Amino acid sequence: MKAEIISVGTELILGDTLNTNSHYISRSLTENGIEVLFHTSVLDNKKLLKDVINIALNRVELLIFTGGLGPTNDDMTKEILSETLDLPLILNSEIEKNIEKYFKGGTNRDMPKNNIKQAYLPKNSKYLKNEIGTAPGIYIKHQGKIIILLPGPPPQEMKTMLDNYVIPLIKQEDIIKTKTINTVGIGESQLEMLLKDIIENETNVNIATYAKMGKVDIRLVTKGKKREENRRRII
Amino acid sequence: MKAEIISVGTELILGDTLNTNSHYISRSLTENGIEVLFHTSVLDNKKLLKDVINIALNRVELLIFTGGLGPTNDDMTKEILSETLDLPLILNSEIEKNIEKYFKGGTNRDMPKNNIKQAYLPKNSKYLKNEIGTAPGIYIKHQGKIIILLPGPPPQEMKTMLDNYVIPLIKQEDIIKTKTINTVGIGESQLEMLLKDIIENETNVNIATYAKMGKVDIRLVTKGKKREENRRRII
Repeated sequence: MKAEIISVGTELILGDTLNTNSHYISRSLTENGIEVLFHTSVLDNKKLLKDVINIALNRVELLIFTGGLGPTNDDMTKEILSETLDLPLILNSEIEKNIEKYFKGGTNRDMPKNNIKQAYLPKNSKYLKNEIGTAPGIYIKHQGKIIILLPGPPPQEMKTMLDNYVIPLIKQEDIIKTKTINTVGIGESQLEMLLKDIIENETNVNIATYAKMGKVDIRLVTKGKKREENRRRII
Repeated sequence: MKAEIISVGTELILGDTLNTNSHYISRSLTENGIEVLFHTSVLDNKKLLKDVINIALNRVELLIFTGGLGPTNDDMTKEILSETLDLPLILNSEIEKNIEKYFKGGTNRDMPKNNIKQAYLPKNSKYLKNEIGTAPGIYIKHQGKIIILLPGPPPQEMKTMLDNYVIPLIKQEDIIKTKTINTVGIGESQLEMLLKDIIENETNVNIATYAKMGKVDIRLVTKGKKREENRRRII
C-alpha cells in the first residue's frame, strides 16, 4: 500500500515549526510495511489544500493528514476534505460529550462554543479517540482509499493516536525490511563503484549509499516478498 | 513570488533522516519576502520525481530542490530535471577542476571516476560553488520559472550555498513580515472568539492562533504592500 503524509499548517511552511510529525509517521509506517512515497506540507489555505488532496487521491492509496483539526477558523483539513470527497459533516454526540468532559475534567470550564466544530464527522467515517486533547482523529474508507486525519500540534496527540489506533488499523502483511550498514574511511563514490554490480542487478532490494558527516551509510530496502532470503544473500 | 521546496531522498521518506533542510530554507525565504506555499519530499525514484517536478512547475514560480546531487546512481535530481525541461547536460570544465582540487586538497586522492557526473550542467544554467563539498548548486531560469538545485546531506553544504548565493540572487522587494504574540492562561477557542472580528475583516494581514504545550500563539503574517501600517493598527 502506497502512502502520502500531508501536513497542513502555515507554521510549518513559514519555517516556524520543524515538521517532526512526518518523520515520526514515516518511520512508523515503514516499520509496519507501508510504502511511503511522498511528504507534502501546505499552508492553511482552502484552494491549495484542495489541490493537494486531489493530487494525493490520484497517486496513493493511503493518505495520512496531520494538522488543521483544531477548533478555530484556520483549521480546515476536515472541512475541505469533506467538501472534496462530497461527504456531509454530521454531528457526533459521543465526540461532543468527550470534548465537554475534557473541559470539565481539566479546569472545570464549559466547552467553548467553537469547539463544537470538532464534534462533526464526515459521513461514514470513524473517529479515533484523542486521549490528551480535544481533536479526535478520523478514519475514512472511501472509493478504495484509506484517509486518516490526525491532529498536528502538539505532536503528543498525533503520536498517541498513531500508535494506539492507526497502525493496528492499517497493518499490512507484506512487510518491508530495511537495514543500514555504516562505513568509514571510504568515499561515497568509491563505495558505490565497489557495489555497482549488485546495485544494478538486484531486483528485490533497493541499495543506495548516503553521505553523512565523516561516514557513508549503505541502505538496503527490500521490496515485496521473498525479501529475507535476498537480504541474506546480499549482506 | 510563490515557492515550493522539494526534498529528494529515500532516507527522508523512510523516516530515517529528519528533514531540517526544508525548515531552514522556508525560514530564510520567508524572512526575505518569498511566499512559500508547499514542501514536497519524494523517494529517489525517476517517475515519481518527474511527476513532482511537473506539479511544481504548474503551481509556483520558484522551485528549490535539495538532495540528489551526489555522484552515485541514486542521485538523479539534476538528470531528471534536465530531461523534464528538455535541457541537455553539458560538461563544465571549471566545476571539474573544482572537484579535482577538492580531492587533491583534502586527502591527496584522484577524483573518483563517477564524480565527473557532478561536473555536468543543464544548458543555460549557472553553477553555485560548493565551498565544503563536491556537488555544486545549480541556478536555472527557464520559461518564467526560477529553479535552484542544492545539495541535500550534509545540511552544511546547502546552508552555506543558500546564505551566500541563493538568497542574494532571489531577494525580493515585496517583503512579508511576520510577528508572533505568545499568550498563556486562555484556550485557543476562546482566544479566537475574542479575535473573531479582526480575523474575519482584516484583508492585509493573516491572523491565526496556534496551540502549543501550555500556551497559545497568535501569528500575524502580512501580505503585500502597506503591511507596516496594518501591522501597527492591529497590534
